[in-house]
Amino acid sequence: MTIPIITLITDFGLKDSYVSEIKGVILSISPACLIVDITHQIEKFNIRMGGFLLASASKYFPENTVHVGVVDPGVGTERRSIIIETMQSYLVGPDNGLLFLAAKNQRVRRIHEITNKELMSSNISNTFHGRDIFAHAAAHLAKGVLPAEFGPPIQGIVEPAFAKVKKKGNKLIGEVLHIDGFGNVITNIEEKDVKARITGNIVKVELPKAELRLEFCKAYSEVETGKTLAIVGGHGLLEISINRGNAADEHQIEVGDKISTSFSS
Amino acid sequence: MTIPIITLITDFGLKDSYVSEIKGVILSISPACLIVDITHQIEKFNIRMGGFLLASASKYFPENTVHVGVVDPGVGTERRSIIIETMQSYLVGPDNGLLFLAAKNQRVRRIHEITNKELMSSNISNTFHGRDIFAHAAAHLAKGVLPAEFGPPIQGIVEPAFAKVKKKGNKLIGEVLHIDGFGNVITNIEEKDVKARITGNIVKVELPKAELRLEFCKAYSEVETGKTLAIVGGHGLLEISINRGNAADEHQIEVGDKISTSFSS
Amino acid sequence: MTIPIITLITDFGLKDSYVSEIKGVILSISPACLIVDITHQIEKFNIRMGGFLLASASKYFPENTVHVGVVDPGVGTERRSIIIETMQSYLVGPDNGLLFLAAKNQRVRRIHEITNKELMSSNISNTFHGRDIFAHAAAHLAKGVLPAEFGPPIQGIVEPAFAKVKKKGNKLIGEVLHIDGFGNVITNIEEKDVKARITGNIVKVELPKAELRLEFCKAYSEVETGKTLAIVGGHGLLEISINRGNAADEHQIEVGDKISTSFSS
Repeated sequence: MTIPIITLITDFGLKDSYVSEIKGVILSISPACLIVDITHQIEKFNIRMGGFLLASASKYFPENTVHVGVVDPGVGTERRSIIIETMQSYLVGPDNGLLFLAAKNQRVRRIHEITNKELMSSNISNTFHGRDIFAHAAAHLAKGVLPAEFGPPIQGIVEPAFAKVKKKGNKLIGEVLHIDGFGNVITNIEEKDVKARITGNIVKVELPKAELRLEFCKAYSEVETGKTLAIVGGHGLLEISINRGNAADEHQIEVGDKISTSFSS
Repeated sequence: MTIPIITLITDFGLKDSYVSEIKGVILSISPACLIVDITHQIEKFNIRMGGFLLASASKYFPENTVHVGVVDPGVGTERRSIIIETMQSYLVGPDNGLLFLAAKNQRVRRIHEITNKELMSSNISNTFHGRDIFAHAAAHLAKGVLPAEFGPPIQGIVEPAFAKVKKKGNKLIGEVLHIDGFGNVITNIEEKDVKARITGNIVKVELPKAELRLEFCKAYSEVETGKTLAIVGGHGLLEISINRGNAADEHQIEVGDKISTSFSS
Repeated sequence: MTIPIITLITDFGLKDSYVSEIKGVILSISPACLIVDITHQIEKFNIRMGGFLLASASKYFPENTVHVGVVDPGVGTERRSIIIETMQSYLVGPDNGLLFLAAKNQRVRRIHEITNKELMSSNISNTFHGRDIFAHAAAHLAKGVLPAEFGPPIQGIVEPAFAKVKKKGNKLIGEVLHIDGFGNVITNIEEKDVKARITGNIVKVELPKAELRLEFCKAYSEVETGKTLAIVGGHGLLEISINRGNAADEHQIEVGDKISTSFSS
């Protein structure tokens, strides 16, 4: 028998006890599961960053992992609580766009709203559904409770704007999804779209505060230290990086910036 | 059989190897236990913050969990090392007030000093009892060693000043226990004391640098973005918050500030 | 049967999904292992800090633990990927000096290069060998695959400069290995070398920006609050500390600084 895995991704940070309260609740319901942190350092209320990192991380976990996402500025309002069963895993969290990218990548099997009060805390805080609703749902899923037992099936979920790339012939127009701890700038432009257009090894990039003509590389170290390059990083997405440097700082690039790329030899 | 759970709360941060050394020691003695971090980002030597977060988190864990707290400015001096067996769990750490709030909430069954050298490291550093005494104690407790085997029973423990709220008729005078990562200001004023006094939905608050007249809400989003509110948060304590904002920064509130509240409609 | 333990030490930080991707890969291959974080907050590309903390932490873990180190500025270049089997554990990572101190402390049994593509990801990123090579290697080791199956045996590994202490009679000349979260300054000077030279309780220290005459103490609290002292800390190495203060800030000491010590009564 395999041990069920539950991952957590939140904007709670690590300085408070919130994350451990979620873990305590999960272990009280499902003592034999394994809890893995994706990250708790999503910028406060930044659904884009949370959604991107959840999609990135979740593809590396075993089948049937339960992923809990809590970046939830609308907690306590009418936004729905949902479980998405994909071809690969379960996604649990608020219906605010956070789970969208992961669900799309993994292909959706069914979606249920969480309404069954017997599968929640008996005392639901208005400020902390991560602990009082989502942790309970994840622990029950890990114990084998079926999505249909949590509430009625639903069709659509909230679709965020940040997942769309415009294609204009040779041009790809997207945006900056994330800046990682190394200052690498990760866009929403996918490898396959780059590969379909690239002819030589030059990527031209237009950003709000920078215009760059970059070498398209396979390793950071193909260019000399301090030089900016374009690369498809570990996420399968186009990145702008500096070999041993911080591309976001150097070129004043921020999350959410529009980016337009074209290609030449 | 259930897997024993050990939680850790320290001021060691995550940049050093200290926390992992504690984990290595625990797993060397008790390989089949599950270790959960509460937080390691307690401000250095801040027993109040550690005590509050330990009390907050510990109530969500299964019975018989062993909680280890290490915020220990007096390490290497004569302060005692203790195990508190409560009605719910075991608390292990220095006798400096850190374990007090959790012990009070959970009700104390018995307290033992840790003096038995056979249940410590054979080589005790003067600077790191977390690893050389408390980690050993926790791992042995998780394996079923009884508190009485660690040393003699003791009666009182050090009682910190930060847990007391003065009640003057309609007024509650407490202090700021903690400021969380969202800038929410958490006081030591309990929900039941607020509920016993509130008549309408207005909470008047006096702080060293601010006087506020706040709406008492059930969800952050009951007020418009950027507005300050009063709320009973996930800890069951009165909080001052700003919907999608940082109340501590906005009103210059710091941990330890005195706070006086009164109520009107 | 004991559960295999895998530890991780990287410079990836906790804000990204990189660490969780490594964990997902490990759990996909070896679902029954226990993953423990040493730290992910090594300064970017700081092999000295990573090597020191890996050596510090690894000695506290049970036998046969697999330690994975990823501080890897040369990823994607010709630097080798290696497995070091010591008398105590397995060390997995790039051959860039990162694993040297731990290997030396634990004594080397054999070293193998990782070249067998069947024990790697089928799709190896040029930027993320932590996930695509080292995580795979660790998970397979945890499942019992022998080092020899990963690739050919090799003799020497890259030896970093930061582990060497010069001994000139009564003088020990080393360097600052690490500054911990408390501002304690940890040198590469070992307890045994100090013990062999110390006659009284005075340690004289020359640093680039400070000359200090310090009391050699057994506990921080032997000196009054705010005073600087010398101590052998939890790592078994000479440290310069301030009782309840930050020695690195106070004396402008930085990682890598040369330090010369002599002793008198």
